[in-house]
Amino acid sequence: MQIQKKIRAGPQKVIAAFCLVVILYFVIQTFILDTRQPRMHEKQYVVNNQTYNYNRQIPLIFIGGVPRSGTTLIRAMLDAHQDIRCGQETRVIPRLLQMRAHWMKSEIESKRLIEAGVGGEVLNSAIAAFMLEIIVKHGEPAPRLCNKDPLIMKMGSYVADVFPEAKFIFMVRDGRATVHSIISRKVTITGFDLSNYTQCMEKWNNIIDAMNTQCHEIGQKCLRVQYEQLVLHPRKVMSNILQFLDVPWDESVLHHEDFINKGVKLSKLERSSDQIIKPINMGALSKWASYFPKNVLKEMANIAPMLSVLGYDPFANPPNYGKPDDEIVKNTQDVQGNKSRWKKRAKELSLMKFYNLDDQTVETVSSYSKSLRIE
Amino acid sequence: MQIQKKIRAGPQKVIAAFCLVVILYFVIQTFILDTRQPRMHEKQYVVNNQTYNYNRQIPLIFIGGVPRSGTTLIRAMLDAHQDIRCGQETRVIPRLLQMRAHWMKSEIESKRLIEAGVGGEVLNSAIAAFMLEIIVKHGEPAPRLCNKDPLIMKMGSYVADVFPEAKFIFMVRDGRATVHSIISRKVTITGFDLSNYTQCMEKWNNIIDAMNTQCHEIGQKCLRVQYEQLVLHPRKVMSNILQFLDVPWDESVLHHEDFINKGVKLSKLERSSDQIIKPINMGALSKWASYFPKNVLKEMANIAPMLSVLGYDPFANPPNYGKPDDEIVKNTQDVQGNKSRWKKRAKELSLMKFYNLDDQTVETVSSYSKSLRIE
Repeated sequence: MQIQKKIRAGPQKVIAAFCLVVILYFVIQTFILDTRQPRMHEKQYVVNNQTYNYNRQIPLIFIGGVPRSGTTLIRAMLDAHQDIRCGQETRVIPRLLQMRAHWMKSEIESKRLIEAGVGGEVLNSAIAAFMLEIIVKHGEPAPRLCNKDPLIMKMGSYVADVFPEAKFIFMVRDGRATVHSIISRKVTITGFDLSNYTQCMEKWNNIIDAMNTQCHEIGQKCLRVQYEQLVLHPRKVMSNILQFLDVPWDESVLHHEDFINKGVKLSKLERSSDQIIKPINMGALSKWASYFPKNVLKEMANIAPMLSVLGYDPFANPPNYGKPDDEIVKNTQDVQGNKSRWKKRAKELSLMKFYNLDDQTVETVSSYSKSLRIE
Repeated sequence: MQIQKKIRAGPQKVIAAFCLVVILYFVIQTFILDTRQPRMHEKQYVVNNQTYNYNRQIPLIFIGGVPRSGTTLIRAMLDAHQDIRCGQETRVIPRLLQMRAHWMKSEIESKRLIEAGVGGEVLNSAIAAFMLEIIVKHGEPAPRLCNKDPLIMKMGSYVADVFPEAKFIFMVRDGRATVHSIISRKVTITGFDLSNYTQCMEKWNNIIDAMNTQCHEIGQKCLRVQYEQLVLHPRKVMSNILQFLDVPWDESVLHHEDFINKGVKLSKLERSSDQIIKPINMGALSKWASYFPKNVLKEMANIAPMLSVLGYDPFANPPNYGKPDDEIVKNTQDVQGNKSRWKKRAKELSLMKFYNLDDQTVETVSSYSKSLRIE
């Protein structure tokens, strides 16, 4: 009996000991190691019961470009995608980045910061922490977060260093259209003299040049998107963009106007908000041509050499941007034929502040086609 | 036999089942729940194998005041404490706070930020994240972290809202000494005209008034410390301060000069660095009196009414700040009697940049005592 008992007890003791070890392991794991191991990736947000960590390694999407170049359109189209949230311009992020750029430009200030222990990596982690809090929290959570503050593109390669997994969409538009829009909509941007077309074109040229250089420096993670192509062929261009972003196709991106305030949040105080409540249309492609002073048009190639660099013929007023997809022709007819319906919609959404600035200069399909001789 | 076996097996099964449940609990805890629960307090740093979480709830120490009011001295004394690290002025934190103050002042900008989803709490968490990264990472880790950027005190009550567990040390000094120091050491501070004693006193008055109001608003978590009392009675004043901070007494705080670059890090480009390599001494208490223009001294009560508010007699030039502790008399004699040794020390530490600005105006024990008639 004694011997039998011992034999039976043998494996039980082994099992008990094993259990004890396993329990001990988890106890140590949970209550001791847990608080000792530095965790680097722990800020979190939740979407549909799934938790996402946020940190400098997340695949953020940044949209940049000269203001009035279609950055709001592209962000609204991406906002319509079920996995992406961009949201309104945060305003504060480019200012913080600009402040840093000023410090870095001053040799003595850079030295002082290094003496203060605020060297590159410390400053980067602080700037990243600020940006992440704003980007994550200024709108609804989403699997892919996106930021649209157009001027961020001027500091693009720095942002790419801070967020190594980020991708950049660089919106480019015919500078003449951009400048006409800045002037006609009275958009105050530092450095633009709204009473002077030539000065504005020169300023556009400088900024787009700097941004283009930044996009080159970023390399494969920066995609240059032409506004005109996005408007004329949204399905094709958007499909490229989503592929670039590693995001599955979602038909919603072609109907951002159906998601206004249901995924596509608008600021009542942004000057593009009243425009993106309408479906994609050609309303803003080439009406600039009839507003530019003739003498400025004649000198365009010298005033803004970046036009040619980016593929816009500086001598064509306007150039032929291409033949629109059928959907776009329909959309444009709808927008033109139902002006009062769209005005009512803008009223409903409290977006009348800037609406009338644009109303008298809207382009029709036939005027666009005529100007391009593609009737 | 059969029955006996069953009886024996009973408690073993219970134990086995118990083990299984416990193991399962920890498995679920570790591998499933662990990634699902949002963690709010997860940024960490390690001191002597102990891990500290950092977040908005940590008991930060902020040191503020008008520049040239002893903020560097008090932070060096606290830096000498084994549990505290302040470090150099970060420079970037007050600038971010000032930028925010500008946005809040502008009604339209505040509205735009709210429309952009960047309301109070979102902005606060971004600013807090930025500040924490800088404060934690610009120096060695320590159980209690401290920040000294003097002008932060102007935004003190906002900082107290962002960090509810923070405490504030508000350094106050006779404004005439502060202004004399600003002028003689050529400290450029926005708003101070270094060629005009009256204008500088008025400016001092405005800033100290605003800071004093902020300290009142913060309430019990803000401690006003008079520079003169700290210098004359460091043991007593420092003991009060450490009690206020809930930090145990550490004799090192009275000998900060022994910890230069061993706990007390200096910036070669801060104007006070060469002064705090010396032990606490009376070198800077009342020499201002012989430098102020007589007509300015006569009008002092009107020019700077905050002098009286803070307990400084505006008609005494200089007032009697009190009788120094014996240790301080000895320190001052040491500093005066061994000028070349202290100059050599400054050279060793590469701190000669601003050293000579001060040298010719240093005060001796006997001249101080004479002026106070406490010989």
